[in-house]
Amino acid sequence: MGLDLIILGAASATPTSNQFTTAQLLKMREHYFLIDCGEGTQKQLRRSKTKFSRINHIFISHLHGDHFFGLVGLLSSFHLLGRTAPLTIYGPPKLKDIILTQFRAAGTFTSYPMHFVVTQHKVPQVLVDTDAYTISSFPLKHRIATTGFLFKEKPLKRTLNKEVADAHGIPVCDYHWIKDGKNWTNDDGEEVQNDLLTSDPPKPLSYAFASDTMYTADTAEYVKEVDLLYHESTFCEDKKARAKQTMHSTAAQAATVAKEAAAKHLLIGHYSARYADKSKFEEEAKAVFPNVFAARELYQYRLEHSGIKIKSLAPEKNEK
Amino acid sequence: MGLDLIILGAASATPTSNQFTTAQLLKMREHYFLIDCGEGTQKQLRRSKTKFSRINHIFISHLHGDHFFGLVGLLSSFHLLGRTAPLTIYGPPKLKDIILTQFRAAGTFTSYPMHFVVTQHKVPQVLVDTDAYTISSFPLKHRIATTGFLFKEKPLKRTLNKEVADAHGIPVCDYHWIKDGKNWTNDDGEEVQNDLLTSDPPKPLSYAFASDTMYTADTAEYVKEVDLLYHESTFCEDKKARAKQTMHSTAAQAATVAKEAAAKHLLIGHYSARYADKSKFEEEAKAVFPNVFAARELYQYRLEHSGIKIKSLAPEKNEK
Repeated sequence: MGLDLIILGAASATPTSNQFTTAQLLKMREHYFLIDCGEGTQKQLRRSKTKFSRINHIFISHLHGDHFFGLVGLLSSFHLLGRTAPLTIYGPPKLKDIILTQFRAAGTFTSYPMHFVVTQHKVPQVLVDTDAYTISSFPLKHRIATTGFLFKEKPLKRTLNKEVADAHGIPVCDYHWIKDGKNWTNDDGEEVQNDLLTSDPPKPLSYAFASDTMYTADTAEYVKEVDLLYHESTFCEDKKARAKQTMHSTAAQAATVAKEAAAKHLLIGHYSARYADKSKFEEEAKAVFPNVFAARELYQYRLEHSGIKIKSLAPEKNEK
Repeated sequence: MGLDLIILGAASATPTSNQFTTAQLLKMREHYFLIDCGEGTQKQLRRSKTKFSRINHIFISHLHGDHFFGLVGLLSSFHLLGRTAPLTIYGPPKLKDIILTQFRAAGTFTSYPMHFVVTQHKVPQVLVDTDAYTISSFPLKHRIATTGFLFKEKPLKRTLNKEVADAHGIPVCDYHWIKDGKNWTNDDGEEVQNDLLTSDPPKPLSYAFASDTMYTADTAEYVKEVDLLYHESTFCEDKKARAKQTMHSTAAQAATVAKEAAAKHLLIGHYSARYADKSKFEEEAKAVFPNVFAARELYQYRLEHSGIKIKSLAPEKNEK
């Protein structure tokens, strides 16, 4: 079990020769969720060796270009690659028009059904609710309508101890009920207590994405006790005034949200290009909230209850 | 003197992990012209070490995504970088709406004036006419409204032989007329013939861009005797039926246009991803028109009357 988060882009504003703007791929319970889609995201998906076609849900936080200029290209590539599976896109009201205008201009209609779900930026909102997970949006405080997204696994059924079940001669057709927590009664009317047959399932994990936003105490309320919080930190404290003016956060402010939310881990990113050395962000945040990581592009962050494992997905440098 | 053409992207349809879709930068008489702008063009401009801000004219051939999905990102970066110089964009009618809708959604207006000039796809059209050059569009034959672009230097003034002028005691203020071809008369009324004072200027050069299009005899008429013709060759002859169906060209067809136009040199590109080996395109075209080059990304093609010089602009591989 565990969640995998792949950072496809962690820069703010404009891509540079070797940095990409915001995009992340979350793998939760075998499902692939794309969060934001800056220019070049499809290239980063390829470089991370992600199987494109498994993405069925795309979440766009807001309509600043560094968070969605790569979307139309990705949707177009899905079409050119012959996708047929439905795709749902969650984002601000005007996103649908922006995308469809471009498809219409190309005289193209997609080979797959494309659904748009409009996010509300003033109240939290449940976007997807299945047996396996819930995804909701929550308001952020930025220059234009912006939402964060909260991904929560739902509890799994109890874990059956198959050896004990076999010892009692329990038939497979009864496993279903036992995993739901029921006791089991044999043909002689003897009841076997459920806690002898099962153990607690792994605890559900959760991930919250908060970019772009200035510091607001509300964010911590929306993401209370989340296992992993991604919070933008465009600036360090030396540019606190600039952060406020552009409605962004500093690394220390991101860490403050993580602390107030009692989050388990914090991932920061959306760095301003003015900082060549990204370690400054991490140092600054660590002083407020120790369990912090600075997002690096084409790295996978594997979240388990025991902690975070980081792995590079970057192609070998000599691949060009 | 000479023209420089930098290939920023030469792939068709979708970008891959290490290939970009169509974009080219033409440097003519100290002016920078961007031709098409596939996703990631701004990244390629940076990687080619091009000074962005010198681009004042952008030409978009048609509204298939692989030719313009990088435009809004580039325009947005111009704004974020504080550009103030006017920018003119030449392209199909709907382009303006596509771009402005996205700026409006971001609540942003550009820091610089942006002008849109609508191209006609049924007749040739002069788009820019200055003392130094003429730029016109011409119809191509594709699935949607598509134009090519023809860039022609205008003749320079005659080249003054300064040593001879000095020997005659000609004042600097008279150079202007002499370069225009006038004879010079000294204070004693003696006339010095212009051909003793000047020599012919370098002959003007021209460049034509034709992508995307199926073969049509008209193209050769529009680009007659051009010094360098870029003509798409999405396929080789093995996919001639597919080329016709999608209204694209084969390498042999591109070469046929070059031959019929009596072009000096041909550059081919817009390769379908199904061909791993690009040398096949070059071989096929060569059989029809010998002076052919297969476009390679981040290479500069320097056109002079004596021929073409090719130079790699790619960053060192260990730069990532």
